[in-house]
Amino acid sequence: MSSLIGNLLVAQSGGPTPVINASLAGVISEALKHEDEIPEIYGGLNGIQGVLNEEIVDLAAQSQQTLRALRHTPGAALGTCRYKVKKQEDFDRILEVFAAHNIRYFHYIGGNDSQDTAAKIDALAKERGYELRVIGVPKTIDNDLPLTDHCPGFGSVAKHIGVTIRETALDNAAMGQNDFVSILEVMGRNAGWLAASSVLAHRRDKTDDRVKSNTHYNCTAPHIVLLPEVPFNPDAFITRVQEVLKAEKHCFVVVSEGVQDAAGNYLGADTSSTDAFGHAVLGGAGEYLRNLVEDRFSGVKARASKLGITQRAASHNASKTDVEEAELCGAAAVRAALAGESGQMVTMVRSGKEAYAVETRLAPLTEIANGVKAFPPEWIGEDRMSVSPDFVKYALPLIQGEMQLPFEQGLPRYAQISLFKVQRRLEPHNRG
Amino acid sequence: MSSLIGNLLVAQSGGPTPVINASLAGVISEALKHEDEIPEIYGGLNGIQGVLNEEIVDLAAQSQQTLRALRHTPGAALGTCRYKVKKQEDFDRILEVFAAHNIRYFHYIGGNDSQDTAAKIDALAKERGYELRVIGVPKTIDNDLPLTDHCPGFGSVAKHIGVTIRETALDNAAMGQNDFVSILEVMGRNAGWLAASSVLAHRRDKTDDRVKSNTHYNCTAPHIVLLPEVPFNPDAFITRVQEVLKAEKHCFVVVSEGVQDAAGNYLGADTSSTDAFGHAVLGGAGEYLRNLVEDRFSGVKARASKLGITQRAASHNASKTDVEEAELCGAAAVRAALAGESGQMVTMVRSGKEAYAVETRLAPLTEIANGVKAFPPEWIGEDRMSVSPDFVKYALPLIQGEMQLPFEQGLPRYAQISLFKVQRRLEPHNRG
Repeated sequence: MSSLIGNLLVAQSGGPTPVINASLAGVISEALKHEDEIPEIYGGLNGIQGVLNEEIVDLAAQSQQTLRALRHTPGAALGTCRYKVKKQEDFDRILEVFAAHNIRYFHYIGGNDSQDTAAKIDALAKERGYELRVIGVPKTIDNDLPLTDHCPGFGSVAKHIGVTIRETALDNAAMGQNDFVSILEVMGRNAGWLAASSVLAHRRDKTDDRVKSNTHYNCTAPHIVLLPEVPFNPDAFITRVQEVLKAEKHCFVVVSEGVQDAAGNYLGADTSSTDAFGHAVLGGAGEYLRNLVEDRFSGVKARASKLGITQRAASHNASKTDVEEAELCGAAAVRAALAGESGQMVTMVRSGKEAYAVETRLAPLTEIANGVKAFPPEWIGEDRMSVSPDFVKYALPLIQGEMQLPFEQGLPRYAQISLFKVQRRLEPHNRG
Repeated sequence: MSSLIGNLLVAQSGGPTPVINASLAGVISEALKHEDEIPEIYGGLNGIQGVLNEEIVDLAAQSQQTLRALRHTPGAALGTCRYKVKKQEDFDRILEVFAAHNIRYFHYIGGNDSQDTAAKIDALAKERGYELRVIGVPKTIDNDLPLTDHCPGFGSVAKHIGVTIRETALDNAAMGQNDFVSILEVMGRNAGWLAASSVLAHRRDKTDDRVKSNTHYNCTAPHIVLLPEVPFNPDAFITRVQEVLKAEKHCFVVVSEGVQDAAGNYLGADTSSTDAFGHAVLGGAGEYLRNLVEDRFSGVKARASKLGITQRAASHNASKTDVEEAELCGAAAVRAALAGESGQMVTMVRSGKEAYAVETRLAPLTEIANGVKAFPPEWIGEDRMSVSPDFVKYALPLIQGEMQLPFEQGLPRYAQISLFKVQRRLEPHNRG
């Protein structure tokens, strides 16, 4: 295995997660241990755009305090982008910038679109004979990357959704004198992992059933979970709402933003708008269901909440397990690159026999790129509006543990990196 | 001052708050200390409806564990209602139930509609010569009760909104390569206190400006705050959005659900729906603004989140100050009743000279009933889309301190009361 001496560049891409900065901290911390091979640790600002524009910052120059605080800071400290690199001149430019700054280690923290970009950079470097090691770091709250047991970011948002439902269900139960339908719209464009995670809020006291005095709240919400994997059936939905209302007076519905009707249209979607990757902009599923319920039932009130972007930024509810794994994945990427690997992404596999534990592995970027890990059909309940206990078994370990945030004047104190810019060595890039 | 021996009944009314159960705990804890005067401590289920239906539970029989956990449990442990007592036979029935159970102390934890009910019960008891002491306990996240410095519930929701904005702003900043408008819709039907509290998220590092290395995130969001006290002006709004985008690339807008246009229509409201008190059902302001922004600017993306009911249940972000004050108000109500007062609500005044502190006082229920404390006009910024530093001075003490919740399997463990029902002594009530 050849030793390669050169600088490291890390960048962040796609939608932020509560733990994408923990992965960044993992990359930096590990790289700092290998001064002989990695003299400089750089960050590209706003993902691959920072490379194209030669907007690069010195990460080794950050304070200890900043590095520590990145572990619990939401957003993406380096900035991110949704820019899809397509043109050959862009790829040429990336290698040009890498060469100008002697970048030999490249880590892209992102989802499948980003790992696609990383795969192409890796292939081009090999083709051109530019010695470069490219190891991706997984990131997505959607949990839909293939070949990894789960993705950093998912556990924290799942935990936030669980906390939110358990609390909101108590509010609904308190108001439960009249029929009431509470709707929560959550993220998850193509895969129902996040919507499914809402069932973690369920709670059934384990004390003896004969003991009447039950001092802990037994949460039965959510009662209905609508996954993007299941075409929406209005009649079946309304029938189920009716059953739940009859039994409980209130019905808690969780709906993924990505749910489609039988014709393939997103519920309440604004189809006039698409993002840079051509994905439809979603967001109206909750309000759509609220209207449907109030139309179909007289005297039933429905209210919809939409967590929107707030859910993927909710670091105050981050899962400690998720934070630690995100950092682990960042560190593992650096170690793999140092060991001579390239064109791979770090993955996680469960290694514990009794207790939950993970180990990292590697999977080819080309197999990760543009793949989607669908929610397993066998984990969808028979009624197509619930989730099986096997999913709970899978997901429960991922939300364990709480972070202790530093508070200042009543609010969390978060970190920002210092913009120690690395001097430009090239002319500006003219993107066509 | 005559000593009065008899049972106590407490009930909860209106929308739950993160601390309405802390007030309940305050009532119970204080009442337990006065066994000679208060032999039994009862709770009415679902507000005044529990009295009408003689659905009463024994609160002294709850476990120590439950009483302790009520302090951090959202919802309303006794259940609540929005039932407006209007008919004379309902008021007669209330006194009949009170007499049947020798209720001599009545505490209603609620907002202005509830204190109106309490005032009428107090007046009727006096008229009929039934010895009863009625002391209300303030509760509303809207902070709009008159004659009190602030209301239990407000500080906790303000804190949750502050945490949410500081986190979401980091996400927006990370995505800030292209113009982006982030909209957060918050509660507050008639008064802008909650929308205003969003400015608590602002953060300006106090370190020397010459020090370039700034490791703490300086939050400039929210940039625009739309209060229900200010008629919405689309052109002024769009102009301001444009200014912020030019300076920062992203613009964070907080909008109260109660904002109206110049003609007095709620932004994006569903005017076909009203609640039991005839209030319009709100909720479309955020989506309305998102559409407006995307219509007026080409190439600008906007996304709206709506916290909805989740915000008033977010006990995991409760302010410790708020929790302690809510409990204090409950205890003060019992002490005032024991001291011979009736027809009053507990209020809070600031007593501290240097440091923040509060003392409780009393104010007549009739003056609280149906009153609304508007957001002070002098605290609205000149641009009508911001809030003055005087408001920050007022509100900042109210969000101080964090609760340490017990977590179990990754989620908070909340309490529920045991339904030890008090035996009925009357025939069922037939409401006309």
